[in-house]
Formats: sequence, C-alpha cells, structure tokens
Amino acid sequence: MTREELARYFFNPQGIAVIGASSDPTKLSYGVVHNLITHGYRGPIYPINPKGGEIQGLKAYPSILDVPDPLELAVIMIRAEAVPEALTACGERGLKAVIVITGGFRETGAEGAALEASLKDIAVRYGIRLIGPNCVGVMDAHLPLDTTFITMMPEPGHIAFVSHSGAICGGSIDWARSVGVGYSRIASLGNQLDVDIADGIEMMKDDPNTRVISVYAEGLPDGRRFVEAAASIYRSKPIVMLKAGLTTAGVQAVASHTGALAGNNDAYVAACHRAGVVMVHSLQEQNDVAMALATQPLPRGNRVALLTNAGGPAALAADALDRQGLVMATISAATQERLKAVTPPGTQLGNPIDMLGGPRPEMYSAAGKILLEDPDVDMLMTIFVPQAITPVNEVVQEMVKTGLGAAKPVVACLVGGESLTEAIYTLNRSGVPYYRDPNRAGRALGGLWEYRQLRERPDLTPTPVTDVDRESTQALLDAAWTRHGAGAARGACFLDAESAAQVAAAYGITIPFSGLADSVDEAVALAEKAGYPVVLKRIAADVVHKADVGGLALDLRDAEAVRVAFNHVTEGGRTRAMVQRMIPKGQEVILGAKRDAQFGPQLMFGMGGLYVEILRDVAFRLAPISAEDARGMIAETAAGRIMQGVRGEPPGDIAAVVETLRRVGQLVTDFPNIAEMDINPLIVGPAGSGAWAVDVRIRIEV
Amino acid sequence: MTREELARYFFNPQGIAVIGASSDPTKLSYGVVHNLITHGYRGPIYPINPKGGEIQGLKAYPSILDVPDPLELAVIMIRAEAVPEALTACGERGLKAVIVITGGFRETGAEGAALEASLKDIAVRYGIRLIGPNCVGVMDAHLPLDTTFITMMPEPGHIAFVSHSGAICGGSIDWARSVGVGYSRIASLGNQLDVDIADGIEMMKDDPNTRVISVYAEGLPDGRRFVEAAASIYRSKPIVMLKAGLTTAGVQAVASHTGALAGNNDAYVAACHRAGVVMVHSLQEQNDVAMALATQPLPRGNRVALLTNAGGPAALAADALDRQGLVMATISAATQERLKAVTPPGTQLGNPIDMLGGPRPEMYSAAGKILLEDPDVDMLMTIFVPQAITPVNEVVQEMVKTGLGAAKPVVACLVGGESLTEAIYTLNRSGVPYYRDPNRAGRALGGLWEYRQLRERPDLTPTPVTDVDRESTQALLDAAWTRHGAGAARGACFLDAESAAQVAAAYGITIPFSGLADSVDEAVALAEKAGYPVVLKRIAADVVHKADVGGLALDLRDAEAVRVAFNHVTEGGRTRAMVQRMIPKGQEVILGAKRDAQFGPQLMFGMGGLYVEILRDVAFRLAPISAEDARGMIAETAAGRIMQGVRGEPPGDIAAVVETLRRVGQLVTDFPNIAEMDINPLIVGPAGSGAWAVDVRIRIEV
Repeated sequence: MTREELARYFFNPQGIAVIGASSDPTKLSYGVVHNLITHGYRGPIYPINPKGGEIQGLKAYPSILDVPDPLELAVIMIRAEAVPEALTACGERGLKAVIVITGGFRETGAEGAALEASLKDIAVRYGIRLIGPNCVGVMDAHLPLDTTFITMMPEPGHIAFVSHSGAICGGSIDWARSVGVGYSRIASLGNQLDVDIADGIEMMKDDPNTRVISVYAEGLPDGRRFVEAAASIYRSKPIVMLKAGLTTAGVQAVASHTGALAGNNDAYVAACHRAGVVMVHSLQEQNDVAMALATQPLPRGNRVALLTNAGGPAALAADALDRQGLVMATISAATQERLKAVTPPGTQLGNPIDMLGGPRPEMYSAAGKILLEDPDVDMLMTIFVPQAITPVNEVVQEMVKTGLGAAKPVVACLVGGESLTEAIYTLNRSGVPYYRDPNRAGRALGGLWEYRQLRERPDLTPTPVTDVDRESTQALLDAAWTRHGAGAARGACFLDAESAAQVAAAYGITIPFSGLADSVDEAVALAEKAGYPVVLKRIAADVVHKADVGGLALDLRDAEAVRVAFNHVTEGGRTRAMVQRMIPKGQEVILGAKRDAQFGPQLMFGMGGLYVEILRDVAFRLAPISAEDARGMIAETAAGRIMQGVRGEPPGDIAAVVETLRRVGQLVTDFPNIAEMDINPLIVGPAGSGAWAVDVRIRIEV
Repeated sequence: MTREELARYFFNPQGIAVIGASSDPTKLSYGVVHNLITHGYRGPIYPINPKGGEIQGLKAYPSILDVPDPLELAVIMIRAEAVPEALTACGERGLKAVIVITGGFRETGAEGAALEASLKDIAVRYGIRLIGPNCVGVMDAHLPLDTTFITMMPEPGHIAFVSHSGAICGGSIDWARSVGVGYSRIASLGNQLDVDIADGIEMMKDDPNTRVISVYAEGLPDGRRFVEAAASIYRSKPIVMLKAGLTTAGVQAVASHTGALAGNNDAYVAACHRAGVVMVHSLQEQNDVAMALATQPLPRGNRVALLTNAGGPAALAADALDRQGLVMATISAATQERLKAVTPPGTQLGNPIDMLGGPRPEMYSAAGKILLEDPDVDMLMTIFVPQAITPVNEVVQEMVKTGLGAAKPVVACLVGGESLTEAIYTLNRSGVPYYRDPNRAGRALGGLWEYRQLRERPDLTPTPVTDVDRESTQALLDAAWTRHGAGAARGACFLDAESAAQVAAAYGITIPFSGLADSVDEAVALAEKAGYPVVLKRIAADVVHKADVGGLALDLRDAEAVRVAFNHVTEGGRTRAMVQRMIPKGQEVILGAKRDAQFGPQLMFGMGGLYVEILRDVAFRLAPISAEDARGMIAETAAGRIMQGVRGEPPGDIAAVVETLRRVGQLVTDFPNIAEMDINPLIVGPAGSGAWAVDVRIRIEV
C-alpha cells in the first residue's frame, strides 16, 4: 500500500464500521460512534453489534459482512479474545484498513503477545494495514474525523501528532484547547503491531494542513525504517521528536508499559541526527517548539531582538538565547533613532529594547515593525509583564498585528497567570505562539533556528565503499567461527588479533606491517622484514585487553630485544606472538562500531588512550557513513578539535580518519555478524601522512 | 541594625507614611495607599501630600515631619529629583526604614547614578536602611502588608520571594493566584542601593511562615556577603536561586537593565556551591522546585514510586528521575501483593505502578498509602491523565488524601489543560504540588533530594593555613611591583618565574629546586647542584607562555646539554635562564586562582597539559577552601577520577593536591593584589610522594 493510500484509508475513509458499537453511554465503545457523529465525520457510519437494531440513531449491522459500500475503515473495540475473529471478518469483507482500539495484548504478557501475533497473521493474509492494538485511534481536525473515544476534539491547526501513547493524545488535546493551539491530525498507534511511527509520519507528509510533525515514541520496532522515513520528510516538514526510555529507569518503565524495547541513548541520538529530527526531552518542550514551527516562518539567521516592558524577563530571555546558540541582535543607530520616535521617553534602545514600566499598547506594534524591518534582526521576541496601567489584551492585539504576515518569526512571552487566560488563547489562535517563561520562548526560537540549519545541511547519504575484498573477509570470519564454534548454532567470539587485522586490511583500513611468529627465530625474521622498531603482542583467543595482562612489548629496537621480549610475551613460548612495525608518534584516537538492537550498526569515534572511559569524549553515528557526516562526527569531539592542530602542533590527518570511518562503516554494514569492532588506538599522523589501525578487535555473533 | 530589626521595620512596621500619596486612581502612587488599606494592613497609614486634606478617606499630612507616632516605615513615590529631600525629611523625622519605589536612578545612566549616590549619603547620615530605588516594595501575605501598587495580593503560603525585579514579582503573583500557590513574603529590591539580596534573604530567615526562600537576582553588589548570608541560612531554610546574566547575552541585558554587574558564570556556580543554594535556570523551574520545598517533607533517600493511570507519562517521568539523580524504587513482593488487592485487574504492579485505563478514584489513595508505607520508597509521584470515565476532581481529592500529612514527599502530575483548572488549584492549595509535565514533576522531586543532600553535607568552612611566610611574600610582590611600576599608581604585571616560584614556596607549595643563571657556567653549576636531569627556562618579564616561544629546554642530562641549551634558551645570552630539577613522570594537572569582580578570589583545578583549553575539564570553588571542599572539587573532574587510579595505574597523591589548593587559596586571600595565579603543570606523583608546582605564574594588579 502506498503512503498516499495509507493516509487516505486512515484519515479520509469513505465509510467507517465500528465493531463493538454500543448504546450504553458508560462504555468507551459508545464514545467512538458518538464522536464520529458529533465531531462531524460526513461519510456513512456503520455500528456493528450482533443484536442489530439501532445504535445512536444509526442502523446497526450484526456482522461487518452485511455492511454495504462505501466502507473503507473498521474500528474494532471488543474484548481482546474476540478480535481475531472480527479482524478475519474485516478481511473477508475486503477491508484494507483497520484500527484495533482494544487493549490486552503484548502489553499484558506472553499470552497477550501470542494473541497479538495471531492478529499479525490475519492482517498479512488479507493485506490489511492495522493501527493498534491498544490505541485510541485517529483524528483529523480539518476534515473532520474522530475515531477515538476521547471526549474532546482539538481545534483545527497545523501540528500533526503521532503518538505511541493514547493517554498522551488525550492530555495534549485537553491542553491545546485551553491555550488555543490547534492540531491537523492525530494518530495514536498503540502497540504498533503493523502501522508504526515511520508509517505515522509518512501519513502526515502530504497533508496540506500539517506544517510540523510531533512524534511521541516509546520503542521504534524498526529503527532503520524510521530513520529512512524521517530523512525523506524532514526537509519538507519538520519532525519534533520526544522519546521515552532514554535512561535506565525510562527503559524499564517503557518495557513494562508496551513491552517495547527502548534501546540505547547514544544510538537514538545518532539516529535522530541522520533522520534530521529536532530532538526534545519533555512534552512541554515538544509543544513549545512545535507551536513555533507550526506558525512561524524560518529565520534567515540567529540574531534576536527582545522588545519588552520589563528588564528582568528580558535578561532571563537573553540567557536563554545564548543557551540555544542564538545571539542578541545589534540594533543599528538608524533603527534606534526610529524606535525613539515610537517608544516612551527613557526607553533603552539597545537590545533588549526596554520600554520600562508604561508603554502604550500600540508601541508594541510600532516598535516591533521597526525591529522586523532591520536587516540585522532575524527574529523578534515580544515580552510583556502585566502592569496596573497597561491593558494586557490590547497589548496582545498589537503583538498579533506585529506577527501577522511577518516574514520573520515573532513569539510572545507574557509573565503571569490569572490575568492572561484570554491573552494566551488570542495569541495562539492568531498564530503568535505564547510562552509563559522567557526560557521556553528562547527554546522555541532555538527550535526554529535548529530546524532551519537541519533543512539546509548537506546531504548525509553515504556513498558505498566498493574497493573492498568481501570474499577474503567472509572467509576470515567463517574461519574464526569454525575455530570457535565447532558446529554451534549460535554464539559469539572474538577474532584473534591477526585475523582482525586482516579483516581490516581487506576493507582498505591501514594496518602496520605484521606477521605471526611461532618461534623466536620467526619473530626476529619478521622484525627484520618489518623494520625496527617493532612491537610484540601475545596471540591467544581469550586475550582481549592485551595491555592489561602483560602480553605486549613496545619499542623493540633490535633482534636481541625481540628475543628477550618474545620469551616474556609468549610466556616462554606457550603462545604465538604477533610482530608488528611500531608506528611513529601521532594522536591516539579510538574508532569503533557496535550494533544497536533498535537502530543497527553504529560508529563511534573519540579520544583514545588509557582514559577513554573517563573522558567519554565520543561521538556516535549510524553506519554506513558519508565523508561529510564523518567530518562532522570528528569535529564534535575534543579529539577532533585537537586534530585540527592546537598550540602550534601540526594538524592531524583528518582525511585519513574520515576514510577509516567510512570503511569501518561499510564493513559492519556488509557483515551483520560483526557485533562489535574497535580500533584502539588508531594512530593519526600529521595531515597527509595517514592513520594506522594498530590494534583491531572484532567480535562476531552467529 | 540587626537582622531581626530589619525584618520588623520592613515587614511588620508600626505605622507607614506614603510620600507622594495621591487621590488620582490613574497614578501608581494611588495604588500604594489603596493596597495598604484594602489588602488589610492594620496599623496607621499616613498619606503625605503637600496639599494636605484627605486621601482615600485618610487624613493627609503636608510633610512627614508632621506625622505623629507610631511611624516606622516610609514609602517614597515621587519624581526622582525630589527623592533626596524627602529622604532627608524621613531622616529628620527619625525613621530607620524607607522604601523608594521611584525609578530614574542608576538604571538611566550617569546622571541618575549621581542622584542615587546622594541618596546613599543621606541614608548613611541618618542611619536609614533603604529598599530601592526603582522597586515595587514589599508584601507579607500573612500579616497582611502590601506597600506595592501591584493590583493583586498573593494568597498566604510558605514561599518567600526576594527579587531584583519588580515586574517579576507582579508576574509571579498573577501566576501563583491562578494555580493556588501562596507566598509568605515578597521583597522587590530594585537597584539594591542599600538593602541587597543578602539582607533580603536574612529578612526571611526568622519568618515562621516562610519554608523556602526563592531569589531572583541580576547582579549581587556584594557577592561575598551574599554567600555568607546564604551559608548561614540554608541549613534551616532552603534557598532556590535564579540569576540572570550568566551568559554573554544575559550580562549585556542585565547591564542595560539595572546597571548591575552580572559577573562570571564559573564564579557564580562556585559561589552557589559554597552558599548552599539550589540553583535553577528559569522562573518555571524556580517555582516548580520552591512549591515542593514549601509543602513537602524532605526525602530520606532518592527512590521514587510512580503511581499512574497511563504508561506514557510514567515512562517520561522515569527518564526525568534518572536525569535528576533519582532512581525508580523497587517494589517488594509483599507490597505488590497489597497493591493487587486495591488496584484494577491487570495493573502493572512493578514500578511504575500502572493502573491502566480505568482506576476508580479511591484506588489512588489506597495504592498511594501502601506505597508510602513501603520502606524502600522515599517519594511518590502520582500521575493521572484525564480519561472519559474517571472523574478528575475526585481523583485529585484522593491524591490530596494521600499527600496530606504524609512523612514522605508526594507530588502530582496531571497531563492536560482545560479540564484541570479546578484540579490544579485544589492540589496546590491542599499542599500537594501540581505539575503539568512529568519532567517538571521529576525536577521538583530532584530539588527536594538536592536540598536534602545540601543540608546534610559536611561543613565547608575553611581552616586558615598558618604555616606561611607572609613577610617574604609581601617583599617579593613589592619588589616585582617596584621593578615594573616604577612609581605608577595603578597597573598590572607578571612576576618573573623565579619570584613566582619563591612566592609559592613561601606559602608551602612544593616547587622543584631551581636557581637563576646569568651565564653558561652558572647554569651548569646550578644543574650540578639540582641533580640531572634539569630543565632550562628563559627568564624575561614579558614571556608568559614559554613553551610557545622556544624559551624552554627539557630533559637535559649532562653539563654539555645544559651548555647547548643555555645558548638556545637565552638567545645567545641575551636573557637569564632558570635552571630547575626535572620532575619525574606524574599526572599533569592545572591549578589556578583568579579574582571575580562579584565573588572575589576563585580556585580552579583541572586536567593539565597542552589540551587544557580543549578539554575544559575544570572545577571552580571560592577561595580559601577547606580540605573537604578541595577533595570534592578534585573528584568533580576527569583529572580527579584519573588520579584515583585507572586501568591498573597507581592512584596519584590527591592529598598533596588538596594541600596545594588550600595553600593557593590562602595566598590569594591574604594578598588581594594577586589578580591571577596558575600552576601549570602541577605534577602529581603516586600517593604519598607529593606534587610539584613546576611552573608558577602570578599576575598582580595595583
């Protein structure tokens, strides 16, 4: 089913059957039919109830098989055990879209999960796309359409909301109505058995009423698909993403809620980066940012003017701007001159423009207009604290006049409560988003600027790395598994250092010359071939952190040194040793890959050396990776900033690190069995000289 | 005037005169008399107006000199130019407390600043304590007393608010009334000409109605006095501090607002640490935290139970707890068994305790009571999303029942809007703080735990370091200044490396053996005395970062090496050289001190080496410092964690670093002329072996 069809079946269906419709107003299933009728759905509504008769004034059908055309959507709300049969009937009736509101499936344990699996089978058999189970359904505030039992309908607006949780939909609608914020569409997806968050955002893509897509997710059943869907949408519509289960406590809470796997925070951040979404961390922040994106033009730059009647909130706003990467606009002398003519005597004409205690309401629009005309101002925050002598609702009208049709973002911050109820509603309904706290208004402007930058960033799609030797790699991995597994069906093992280095080499990663020695003489011969100084490493399958167990000797400058070290490293010849050319001094970084249960292979880059765990100077990205993205990843870390050259040290070979990241990314993408891979250290020489993977560790899982 | 007197004169005066009282309701000065009367002040009110007669039903006096006893407070609200004369009259009348509401002083520029200075002179002459100018005055919601022109009075409650900004007082009252939050006292301090934030918090200390002190500050005229005042109060009453002007943009905004010096963020954080205040970064966060501190008992631990009717908000709450350093309580099998009996079938009995769609209201109190009785639960967050079938106001009554009189903190999070207006008011008025967003509820609980830990932390008062040689130090500083200044009245200079090292040595800081050489032969002689290997450094007054300019030679192992290096380092004998014993390998850290305009001398500690600017691994504290505090400071940094020993490396001599911090702290406290001091690197040997100040840099300002 195409994205367009999916959106049409669920948000603009011709004919809706409600399986489990009731005449009893105390039942939730009463509410669904009631909402379809009273919230204005214009197509035919077919209550399904074995008793037939009439329900809420509509003819009821004993079975969905009896329902005439047009019929494109069924809403199921009966006890869980009966859902499979009802879904089968929908399939027989030829339906392609079904919403299962009923709960009591995966979220209740193993039995429920089995019941849910049977729904999946039925849906696949009949080609049904299914929302739910354990959800509240969908709404389109413009059409209008409401398949939920939530008592209220949002006002029409431009925020689409895709939510794992139905309760959060209900709470959001309640909140939005009280402050004059509108929604375009709402989709509550529940257990995401079939239609998932990725489908959810795709259903919003072509909706002309949707200007921003807010997402509340707990787990993402197919993380990669979500990333691809979002990446294909974010340049046309912003996606503001809130995810629960990013911390240990949150993961536990999510698991007990919908049985979803919440995944790892680093991987989530990497996924959001690739997906192009604006990340938020609370419902409030999500609403604050979405309100601005739904109503305001995008800023051309990050310079903000503050127009206020009180210095305190403006000072707090200024701090908030700074935290958001925004700056205070410099108000030119010419603009200050113009402002002087329309503001009270004594007004501070620099930024913040502080009209002190008593501006007349119209001064807000007069000064606001002048500020918006200044080419050095990209955004305007208007601030007002209600005072005895200035009527708040008149001020608000002037703020609306300023914002309406402006080519630059305008937001309003009014500090207060009781006296603002009407003002808040007016501002939001008129398209000038209202914020109670300067900090929140700052975040909203920051969200606009963040999205503007996301939208204009270069394409991050990776180009495949093709000059690699897949066959040798496959053979090396197979051999390692054979040595380890000896026929085991599943398991995990580390490659020995030599094989790991060979795998890296097969993917074009630069490794120092090395060879395996079984004896002292072989070791010396290899050392002569490599050229001094050399390094010796113990080779034993169970030794992972070599430096910890003494199986390592550095800076061996002649044959005699190699002889002494071989004996020590191999514990008197009890193991083999790897002889390796010692790499000249350079910056030590760590570069790795691991596989996230939700988002697949991840790349990691950061400061190397002994203190990697303590400094935690690391960046993460999805693998594979483009050169552009790899450069950004490196630049995010202190290791990367050092690599640019500090205090007169020459810059390091960043290009070589970028290339290594691309090749590791390709390797772990090509071989899903590679569960983990570390290059620690990667020694980075001066620009142009290269980077060497001195120690490669690879773990495979079968 | 004692703290007690100050509080009594301003918050419980016997008789108040209003200078500039008016009968014209469009004037703000009308409002002051009006509020005194209608908001319930019970003492005599004396309007002062040259015309005499009657104002708002009260006898008006032409001059304050005519006013009979009792009279303890005057409120001045006339044009700025006339304020000095009025203040003088107050002095003549024998008043000891005056509030100047009038603006138009320092905040308007140089002329206003001069006028303000004249007020200071008058106040000092007559021993008057003065609040303002440019403020809105004070309120006591319990007495009651209202000297402001703000139209509304807060409901009586337990939050005291001390605010630089009057507008923020007005906005806060407006907000508080709409959500059922009460205040005990409010003081708007304006320009803080005399009574400042420190006095403000002291005035709240003994108020029996105040349980928490919220502070909004822009600048702190005497930062050290604030720290001392707060430090003497925070163990009896929590202080929740919001400060504007912590970023570059904020500093600019604050300066243009009240002409206050906002100061440096690191110094502010260090000051808050010593002061024992709970730091917040927005008005909303301040209110959220203060509401919990004003109403809830302190938690014994950090384990939180979440009781909810919806999984989504609980998952978000769990994430919020984690970010606050709180943990999800483990619900014992016994407690789960008890919960099972009082919750709907299907309830998730682990934490979160999710009662799914339809709990009856009384289940909130039944389950809440059981959770509070569990010894493994320290705090309870009750979460509710309004749903069609559960009446919200009944749920709220049950939440109140749970929280009322409980020995553990209980907060409420209801996600919604329109339907919650009454619920929010009821919860807050009943002492169960309400939060719209799970993240905010999490922060509130985090604030309780943060304060609990602050209150029980060890005493941070430093013990003076006395085994120091102040005379030699004074002589070295004087000599450096004489060499540099040659009679200049003001200026700044660096000490040469040798003098700086001697100053450090005089304060008991361990420095490697060193001496100054004017010639190659002297250099070799010193090297022989120090013992090889040695280091040579160029000594020239203008060379600060030696490593940048080649004036440094390391690891010189014999006389010949010293000879070669001397020639190089001194550019062929054009400067002198310092010969120093080279210190064995150890961890390189940086340790420094600088002077903040607002908070005085600061100590800095962090990771040393070339990358200090890039890693920014530093902690700050006020100087002088206790050993306890120094240990905490070290532990905050990655450098400190490395010093504890990682990956089998031996731990470093933390005690020696603590001692060095104490001695540097004493030095910069004893000699205010030391504007800046760096030890970079301080080489820290293994535990017990010591730490060496290899390079000491001292800048003095006269």
